Amino acid sequence: MKSLGVLGGMGPAATLDFLARLQAATPATRDQDHIRVLVDINPHIPDRNTDSAAAGPVLGKMAAGLAGAGAEVLAIACNTAHAYADLIREASGLPLIDMIDIACEAASDVGARRVGVLGTPTAVALYSARLAGLGLEPVVLDEAHQARFMELVYRIKAGDLGQDVRDGMAGLAAGMDAEALIAGCTEVPLVLDPAALSIPLLDAGALLAARCVAVCSQ
Amino acid sequence: MKSLGVLGGMGPAATLDFLARLQAATPATRDQDHIRVLVDINPHIPDRNTDSAAAGPVLGKMAAGLAGAGAEVLAIACNTAHAYADLIREASGLPLIDMIDIACEAASDVGARRVGVLGTPTAVALYSARLAGLGLEPVVLDEAHQARFMELVYRIKAGDLGQDVRDGMAGLAAGMDAEALIAGCTEVPLVLDPAALSIPLLDAGALLAARCVAVCSQ
Repeated sequence: MKSLGVLGGMGPAATLDFLARLQAATPATRDQDHIRVLVDINPHIPDRNTDSAAAGPVLGKMAAGLAGAGAEVLAIACNTAHAYADLIREASGLPLIDMIDIACEAASDVGARRVGVLGTPTAVALYSARLAGLGLEPVVLDEAHQARFMELVYRIKAGDLGQDVRDGMAGLAAGMDAEALIAGCTEVPLVLDPAALSIPLLDAGALLAARCVAVCSQ
Repeated sequence: MKSLGVLGGMGPAATLDFLARLQAATPATRDQDHIRVLVDINPHIPDRNTDSAAAGPVLGKMAAGLAGAGAEVLAIACNTAHAYADLIREASGLPLIDMIDIACEAASDVGARRVGVLGTPTAVALYSARLAGLGLEPVVLDEAHQARFMELVYRIKAGDLGQDVRDGMAGLAAGMDAEALIAGCTEVPLVLDPAALSIPLLDAGALLAARCVAVCSQ
């Protein structure tokens, strides 16, 4: 077994959702069957969307702190923060299980060629490059709809999981001409019901949780 | 603001419940309003009930690791592990917000004189001494009912939150001749509905979460 370090807090509710997915993905009949998880839920990381230069050093320090506390493998419970993946690997000296890679591979596995991505502008850029590298075609929101998406994300972060937010997210998802959709922001699955979509929804956070349990249980 | 370190994993589900309570107790409209929480969810701590000598050094190392990662104040999301409170303070050099103290003070605040405690044998012993120190009378289960309680706790840790477990816990609670009842094991509130009791239920974990937010928000 390996101890997993999780960089979280972006936002805090999404981190708890990720931790719950880790536990749900673990076949356990007693405490000792679970993997050890060290988590830094740090909501004071400078906003990855509005102050990206300041976020890097903070994430690097968090990663090094988790390594010092006993983490042997790292994961980031935030798609956007994967822009700092190399910096985090370097600061910690630990391997990082990359959520963007895992979600893109899953899109390829379901046989989709045109793959929609719901995420922050930074996450969408990361996904677009990675999908293209696999020979898949990224489908993204236009500028106006992307702005609407960010408005919904900030409402979810403020604790609003109401019907209006759910309808708004479902409307954005339905408008994408794609064969599969990546929920590329940890706030998305908090309000988007896969059953409401006509195409497969690939929940990057859930896929990452399952991979983390598989890697760390060995 | 202060960063909170949480020693968890005893069991893992109870730790997530505690983290959710921390977030719920925080008045927040955006990520940055939340306190930073460093958590070590370590389900591999030797069983506090069956191998108490081995658990201490592991908890001390976890506490020191959290301090090194940036925690400034500690809390333990497990009543039983408070048997190691002094060792944890010493190993980390940090103040510890003591859940046993907080729950006993709450019992005094509600005006109860006879105070029931549902917990592991170690936790019951800690609570009994602390309540007596406040001039209150601890009410505990007899040996047979205590054994039944532990059977229920291990079933909850294995993920069984079913009606049979709920009925069993409610039955134990109802049989205690007390004026208030301390849920002195983090598994108890996962299955015991306060509305089913005729006396106040003091949820030690919830009280600890509220105190942690108050202390760390300053």
